Amino acid sequence: MKPASQPKKTAITPTRGENYAEWYQKVVRAADMAEMSGVRGCMVIKAWGYGAWELMQRELDRRFKETGHDNYYFPIFIPLSYFQREADHVEGFAKEMAVVTHHRLVKKDGVLVPDGELEEPLVVRPTSETIIGESMSKWIQSWRDLPLLTNQWANVVRWEMRPRILLRTVEFLWQEGHTAHETREEALTETKLMLEVYRKFAEDYLALPVITGEKIAAERFPGAESTLCIEAMMQDGRALQAGTSHYLGQNFARACNIQFQNREGNLDFAHTTSWGVSTRLLGGLIMAHGDDDGMKMPPRVAPHQIVILPILREDSPKQEVMDYCESLKKELQAEMFDGQPLRVKIDVRDIAGGEKRWEWIKKGAPLLVEVGPRDVEGGKVCLTRRDQLGAGKRFIARNEFVKSAATELAAAQKALFDAVLAFQRSRTVTDIKDWAAFESYFAKDADNSFTAGQGFVRAKWSGDPASLAKLEPLGVTVRCIPFDQSGTKGVCVLTGAPATQEVIFARAY
Amino acid sequence: MKPASQPKKTAITPTRGENYAEWYQKVVRAADMAEMSGVRGCMVIKAWGYGAWELMQRELDRRFKETGHDNYYFPIFIPLSYFQREADHVEGFAKEMAVVTHHRLVKKDGVLVPDGELEEPLVVRPTSETIIGESMSKWIQSWRDLPLLTNQWANVVRWEMRPRILLRTVEFLWQEGHTAHETREEALTETKLMLEVYRKFAEDYLALPVITGEKIAAERFPGAESTLCIEAMMQDGRALQAGTSHYLGQNFARACNIQFQNREGNLDFAHTTSWGVSTRLLGGLIMAHGDDDGMKMPPRVAPHQIVILPILREDSPKQEVMDYCESLKKELQAEMFDGQPLRVKIDVRDIAGGEKRWEWIKKGAPLLVEVGPRDVEGGKVCLTRRDQLGAGKRFIARNEFVKSAATELAAAQKALFDAVLAFQRSRTVTDIKDWAAFESYFAKDADNSFTAGQGFVRAKWSGDPASLAKLEPLGVTVRCIPFDQSGTKGVCVLTGAPATQEVIFARAY
Repeated sequence: MKPASQPKKTAITPTRGENYAEWYQKVVRAADMAEMSGVRGCMVIKAWGYGAWELMQRELDRRFKETGHDNYYFPIFIPLSYFQREADHVEGFAKEMAVVTHHRLVKKDGVLVPDGELEEPLVVRPTSETIIGESMSKWIQSWRDLPLLTNQWANVVRWEMRPRILLRTVEFLWQEGHTAHETREEALTETKLMLEVYRKFAEDYLALPVITGEKIAAERFPGAESTLCIEAMMQDGRALQAGTSHYLGQNFARACNIQFQNREGNLDFAHTTSWGVSTRLLGGLIMAHGDDDGMKMPPRVAPHQIVILPILREDSPKQEVMDYCESLKKELQAEMFDGQPLRVKIDVRDIAGGEKRWEWIKKGAPLLVEVGPRDVEGGKVCLTRRDQLGAGKRFIARNEFVKSAATELAAAQKALFDAVLAFQRSRTVTDIKDWAAFESYFAKDADNSFTAGQGFVRAKWSGDPASLAKLEPLGVTVRCIPFDQSGTKGVCVLTGAPATQEVIFARAY
Repeated sequence: MKPASQPKKTAITPTRGENYAEWYQKVVRAADMAEMSGVRGCMVIKAWGYGAWELMQRELDRRFKETGHDNYYFPIFIPLSYFQREADHVEGFAKEMAVVTHHRLVKKDGVLVPDGELEEPLVVRPTSETIIGESMSKWIQSWRDLPLLTNQWANVVRWEMRPRILLRTVEFLWQEGHTAHETREEALTETKLMLEVYRKFAEDYLALPVITGEKIAAERFPGAESTLCIEAMMQDGRALQAGTSHYLGQNFARACNIQFQNREGNLDFAHTTSWGVSTRLLGGLIMAHGDDDGMKMPPRVAPHQIVILPILREDSPKQEVMDYCESLKKELQAEMFDGQPLRVKIDVRDIAGGEKRWEWIKKGAPLLVEVGPRDVEGGKVCLTRRDQLGAGKRFIARNEFVKSAATELAAAQKALFDAVLAFQRSRTVTDIKDWAAFESYFAKDADNSFTAGQGFVRAKWSGDPASLAKLEPLGVTVRCIPFDQSGTKGVCVLTGAPATQEVIFARAY
């Protein structure tokens, strides 16, 4: 996180300091993780981005199963009438729904047009509470059928008016957990448990330290009684909501008729929850870890943790270098990191060595290993650790490298986490006590918060919804009521009224 | 595969012999693998079905990666104009497309109606050749960018007029591989390679012996130059197309402008392929392996390979039984089958033991282990092998069972394969030489082919497309031209004309 003024040639132009928003777009592209498609607001997730997503899926899926959840798959289409059952819910999503109205195309005057109008339009799911509720109402009869713990991996569609790649796209991939319980307490326990799964995952796997807390009423999921969240800080000081877990009360049970005979023999509505994380995490990874040379992929989600680059010169013995690389790869694959064999790739493409090296730096492969004829002779490798790019290359003995590779990965994973945590702390202010200070903090150079040094303001808020109007001109929102509260008495930073509760204020993605 | 006339109480009513189509629906339900949803033609895949699909995904994905393919994700929506680029393709799919025409809902007179009409309607992908072709045209400039080997795991939608659960649903899950190559030869090699991946997977994993071959022109994928397929035989003698691999020639490259500079420096169109298998395989598993007591899940795709049923009576020491089951589970999980730890579940639900046992028989868990107080005392378990249900229960020493569990699973896997192969052979006839014999073979009791004993007719066909009209009244199609050909000369079974080529005729799903 060098100051932008330092004159240095960087792989990404503009730098973060010059234009953070454009830097982000450039890194997504340079790391070859995703690109916008020809279809409005929809993206193509490419191999390097999808590979990271698959690793996230595998780990989250393991944690979901460990906590007793089974995977199901529910229809992508939701009849319009299902939505109308929960008033807040439909209100929250109606403006951004893709609607299927016809079931075939026919040629009219040589042009294909929609035909076969549906009796009831179908909505492409923006989220699945209502369609899953429909199934739950059939499956749940008695308390013996509870808890019902489901999850699905799926695509969802929300017609975003201002799409931003990976962060806010018309179609995205996610998982959505949906559970039903006998009591409020049980459902709340589930809601907290899954948020904790997300927190651990974000911190351990994505190297993304997060704030855990509850959303204020105005920021809740449409139809929820309580929304818990993890909020991460990006390098421009903005918040990214990285995962949410909702206690839905009996709202959806009433709407979908999820009724059961309880232990006392009476009919009761189930208490339901839902929770999800999405491919926006890929965007969060970039904005938290990337630098002016591109992406830095945390080793635990790097599709290739080690990339070997054979240096093949016309005048030198290619076969020996290749053999050396192949056997090095095998040795590395016999080593374990995080309970998995190391993920190693040899890049054999026939392009210039320097270009290849910079491609992998921009993609953020954690360890780069260059092998030329002299390394083969000397039994060495030339190592670059992406998170220590400034430290340059290291020549080390091959055997030593193989033995230390997993340790290097662990160190890189930790270094990324530590850097983001230190940044988050340095950009969180707790000494803003009144509106004047608040306003001036968020006012300075709002267009370039990367250099302006803004971030999270942790301050007291009275809870008065009317006071939130003051935030609008600043583009600031209440991100959450953090779980850890001091409990001290003070005054509301927006109104000066007495207040005990602390919240996080920030601009957000 | 007992004759249906044998009087015996079965778990599934009707039996296969009484009504095969209804038996199938009942098994899907009894095994709790999937059910139709309230959305026309769309299904919910439940934990036991989805668990099997996940295991299929994991194994196929491993094989795709081993053969050099990377996963990507492409948009679910395809602009209508993309489809029009390939005439045969749009012709093939236009009648069954879900079309998105609006992007929000608004309330009019208290009723939600679609609003915000799109300038260009979007089709929910029935397959992705055109949308992936659009990306490929941007990514591919030179022969150095080839081959491009992609795959995606996705949902697709085809508006089926007569949906059948798991086999033919409006929405289904699948993988679709899409690759681009420099030459026809390379693309054909890929097409064959992926069919071979499917064959091995079907036979080794699903215990489903298949016929490999090429489709005749009338049965090709719309827009393909050649469609290869694996065809399996269900227990009613009908064929199930279980996977296809298409050589698309330069058709889609021309339609999508996938052009590259070849090694000679000239512009050329790429040669593309596509290949896929879907959740219909779950239906195929049931129809190939199920019996009148329900499903038999091949061990390699069984979400739980071993289910332990503690027998807890009110008057006996529950804790000892549970401890015994827990430690047995741990010991079994330390054993390996197929390079993976055994997948073991203890069913602790508080329902009657007999009911629980029959639930797992109907679901087809490969090994059932009952443990009661007397088994704990004697250090034994009571074992049922689902594929040998007729052989009844076996009491064996616990240690012996743990040691032999993986072997039992391997034996069960093999037994399922062998049974289906024997059935396929017994129901394949090769001695039908003329139309009269052909017609009489397929005419008998067409409503009940399970008992009528029909299956595959392997016979010579001249290749004259006009002759296929004779098959229509029988509901028979040419399934494929098998790769293994005798090369002998003979006469066409439909026309009597001279013919060398042998094909498989059958009714199909």
